[in-house]
Amino acid sequence: MATNVAPLTAFAYHMPMKIGILQLNPVVGDIQGNSKRILEAVRKAEAMGVDFCITPELALTGYPPRDMLLYGGFIHKVENSAAQLATELKDSIPVLLGSVETNRSGTGKPVYNCALWLKDGAVRQSFKKTLLPTYDVFDEARYFEPASDNAEANNILIFKDRKFAVTICEDAWNDKDFWETRTYDRDPLEEATAQGPDAILNISASPFSLGKQDLRQRMLGAVAAKYTTPLVYVNQVGGNDDLVFDGRSCAFDGQGKVFHRSPGFVESVQIVDLNNPKTNSIAKDDLSEEAETWNALVLGVRDYVSKSGFKKVLLGLSGGIDSALTAAIAAKALGPENVLAVLMPSPYSSQGSIDDSLDLAKKLGIKTMTLPIEHIMDSFSETLAEAFEGYEPDTTEENIQSRIRGNLLMALSNKYRALLLTTGNKSELAVGYCTIYGDMSGGFAVISDVPKVLVFSLCLWANNTFGGIIPENIITKPPSAELRPDQKDQDSLPPYEILDAILEEHIEHHKNEAELIAMGYETEVVRKVLKLVTFAEFKRRQAAPGIKLKPRSFGTGWRMPLACKREL
Amino acid sequence: MATNVAPLTAFAYHMPMKIGILQLNPVVGDIQGNSKRILEAVRKAEAMGVDFCITPELALTGYPPRDMLLYGGFIHKVENSAAQLATELKDSIPVLLGSVETNRSGTGKPVYNCALWLKDGAVRQSFKKTLLPTYDVFDEARYFEPASDNAEANNILIFKDRKFAVTICEDAWNDKDFWETRTYDRDPLEEATAQGPDAILNISASPFSLGKQDLRQRMLGAVAAKYTTPLVYVNQVGGNDDLVFDGRSCAFDGQGKVFHRSPGFVESVQIVDLNNPKTNSIAKDDLSEEAETWNALVLGVRDYVSKSGFKKVLLGLSGGIDSALTAAIAAKALGPENVLAVLMPSPYSSQGSIDDSLDLAKKLGIKTMTLPIEHIMDSFSETLAEAFEGYEPDTTEENIQSRIRGNLLMALSNKYRALLLTTGNKSELAVGYCTIYGDMSGGFAVISDVPKVLVFSLCLWANNTFGGIIPENIITKPPSAELRPDQKDQDSLPPYEILDAILEEHIEHHKNEAELIAMGYETEVVRKVLKLVTFAEFKRRQAAPGIKLKPRSFGTGWRMPLACKREL
Repeated sequence: MATNVAPLTAFAYHMPMKIGILQLNPVVGDIQGNSKRILEAVRKAEAMGVDFCITPELALTGYPPRDMLLYGGFIHKVENSAAQLATELKDSIPVLLGSVETNRSGTGKPVYNCALWLKDGAVRQSFKKTLLPTYDVFDEARYFEPASDNAEANNILIFKDRKFAVTICEDAWNDKDFWETRTYDRDPLEEATAQGPDAILNISASPFSLGKQDLRQRMLGAVAAKYTTPLVYVNQVGGNDDLVFDGRSCAFDGQGKVFHRSPGFVESVQIVDLNNPKTNSIAKDDLSEEAETWNALVLGVRDYVSKSGFKKVLLGLSGGIDSALTAAIAAKALGPENVLAVLMPSPYSSQGSIDDSLDLAKKLGIKTMTLPIEHIMDSFSETLAEAFEGYEPDTTEENIQSRIRGNLLMALSNKYRALLLTTGNKSELAVGYCTIYGDMSGGFAVISDVPKVLVFSLCLWANNTFGGIIPENIITKPPSAELRPDQKDQDSLPPYEILDAILEEHIEHHKNEAELIAMGYETEVVRKVLKLVTFAEFKRRQAAPGIKLKPRSFGTGWRMPLACKREL
Repeated sequence: MATNVAPLTAFAYHMPMKIGILQLNPVVGDIQGNSKRILEAVRKAEAMGVDFCITPELALTGYPPRDMLLYGGFIHKVENSAAQLATELKDSIPVLLGSVETNRSGTGKPVYNCALWLKDGAVRQSFKKTLLPTYDVFDEARYFEPASDNAEANNILIFKDRKFAVTICEDAWNDKDFWETRTYDRDPLEEATAQGPDAILNISASPFSLGKQDLRQRMLGAVAAKYTTPLVYVNQVGGNDDLVFDGRSCAFDGQGKVFHRSPGFVESVQIVDLNNPKTNSIAKDDLSEEAETWNALVLGVRDYVSKSGFKKVLLGLSGGIDSALTAAIAAKALGPENVLAVLMPSPYSSQGSIDDSLDLAKKLGIKTMTLPIEHIMDSFSETLAEAFEGYEPDTTEENIQSRIRGNLLMALSNKYRALLLTTGNKSELAVGYCTIYGDMSGGFAVISDVPKVLVFSLCLWANNTFGGIIPENIITKPPSAELRPDQKDQDSLPPYEILDAILEEHIEHHKNEAELIAMGYETEVVRKVLKLVTFAEFKRRQAAPGIKLKPRSFGTGWRMPLACKREL
């Protein structure tokens, strides 16, 4: 396969070749701002002495631009901006820029996802993406026309007598030796390497999920080794709605070994020197589940808040572990001075919950406000007394309390122009242990992809790492919604260890009832959990966006029918 | 192209060929129920003397099954059920059944969308869909592997010495003579007709939008005429979440003329007799905007409510035209005895609004309940007094009222097990003239794709058609949210005629600011409207599903980023 490929050694001691890795954090749709950001990064890299620069995929639009791509006016602006950028960089170094290009063939989707070669004041060459991910959170076949079957010759960039194979993200993710099953017939990497490149370039917008970086390094390392060709992978960084991009751009030598890694979860401009692998830097990285989760959540919150035009946030503190963790993440992401915690005790709230909340706020250095809700609860009871005559109390009364709190929080959000964060975890959202328009109210659901068991271990990790920021009592007491006297989560739900295990199998691995029972889970428990998951679908449809952590999450990548029968 | 195609006349006087058109209303995911429904329809058609039957696309799963298709267990059940259906129909007539088939190649998506030929107790042949719509509300490339390039030979079904070209929905929608620009390179219809079929069969799940039936008849008629080959098109009927399928299955002769049409918006089993075009029935159809809208909304509500397992609904009646129209549709769809209207007057509500609401309820025959909210409003004011000290009153106070009403309605919904309908129109949802967790609360948004101008004309049409069901005063008074003294919609919004025109250009035709101004709309108005549309995106993300009416609607087919800058 790779017979005519030059190994790293043949390349390494040839002429100098330093590449600027622009690991950027664009704002989706902010063409002007992103253009400026790219320009500044190129100037910086130029000053560092690189020969050319590489941006992430779609750096000019930010990834994912979604339905903005359906607007012809938007595409026009992006194309103009790329040409303008080329002009402004006329006397600078060349750039391989992630952008779009209009499809002028008259057939197919209106645009290509491509890498543009900006050199000497103009766009000199365009490399089109071939493999368009259309699964989970990805909708690329909705927008983009793929490179045609005859595009092989166009995948090669020649610069300073060296040949580079240019690929875009998914193009490198279909190797038949690495993957047990393949998503696509074509392998653009195989096509490109058949032409004997000196190195493979891959511009990406590869969103974070737990374990993804480990997979990327194994997979990209394996293809670099397979073709005995160095591979440079440049990833986007930053939070864009539900997606966090973790950066961690890498370079691999022709044996598949990482010889450069940019830092995770921050913007950076770095040098990859293909000739002197030893001079390159490999940023430290913590691949533990807790560290990855924490870093992703902090970045996700910071960017969602700032890219939405907010500075301040608020949230309800119940005294429970979920709101405590959310508050800790928000304080870290935005600074404690920008976080307001609101306590809204009812007659069912324990004094312990109030004390724990105040203790937490003190440790985090965030402000608090206390708004007791008993008086409002009474006014609802009176107003509804006649309508509820003859009906037994049920979850209705609990939901009313939760919605009173939602109304108060939204009122403060509106009045103070602060974004309301919701505090529910993934286990709750899965089984519907949450109130729509109540505790589900808010603009951003920080931990909605964190299962309850991980909530606990993340709090312990945070306390170890940052020195006891979450009161011990909040972590150790039995979880309760405190919506009726002596209520405990475990009265209505199986133990969280079992619940989370079943949910992971069902949501992430698509196991159905029969398969779960065959795996050894109790029939009654499985049935109950799956029934709850199904029933809660209408709540999730109206849930706030949250940060994707897991390979499969609720949100944009979860598309379930509502008025249906689920015979999975 | 069509040189070896047999024209209708060559076929018409050959042997008898009667086809059973099973225009079914499946429940998504209800494999057992759908299977039973198909079985009963086949028996009925058999009794009517047809030679074979055709179901809509994916009749066994219902369309669209969405992420259920990612569950291997689900696919397994569907395939078993198809085989079981073949067995049960062993001694009956053959059926061309819309279903799925596992992709066993090891590459690509796990399933095919296909038409299975059930005959003599087994699945005898499978016809795979080639063109997979992946735009607007369609995500087929997410789930299905397309038929391969070499599938032509498999598109022909031979039965009783006649050749049928089998196509699935989109397969017939890419004719290069009909469309100015084409979405795909391939044309399965061209490939199939090259083999000289006696008739083209097209099994579909083609969702309704305004004007779609007119387009279908023109387009399918044009291809039937182009290939001088009769075409039989079988469509699904029924509401599945946001999509309404309007049925209206058709048969076209070799000159492109409709010679059969099944009725719109209802299930039906009909005969198409290819040999005696004159004996076929063409159901009457009203293609006026108001009739199509009314029929779609009534069916959409009826099916969403029943397929969600509800019988009763409730809604808030404000005295305005939107809630009046929603109540009228609900009463028609579910029977007035299943609709509860809740009046929640505040000190800002006019006596006229209360009188109008009671008058409407009387005309519709629906029950009412009145829950004044002043007392609850006071309790919120008191609770928030300190927090709001030093802040001017603004929309916050209006939102609190709206959310009090949302809480009361949801409480009744929970207590009475009745689905809450929301009453906002498309113009409001577009510009954010609505309160998240307030009047946006509810399980189903009946008129959320109806622009305000169409709301008015629909009410007039309904009064003409059903005899004055909506009080004149509700239609003629100036629209107001009545959330502060003397408030009128037109104080903060441009006239609805202008607003709706701008919104249609922007949302449906993707015109941006510069293009709208070039079209002659006032610069300031355009800027204001587009700014409002952008700002309201976060509300729409958490909106209840509504019924799709327009070629482009908010909901599953509208995928816009949130934390971004919109430079469209």
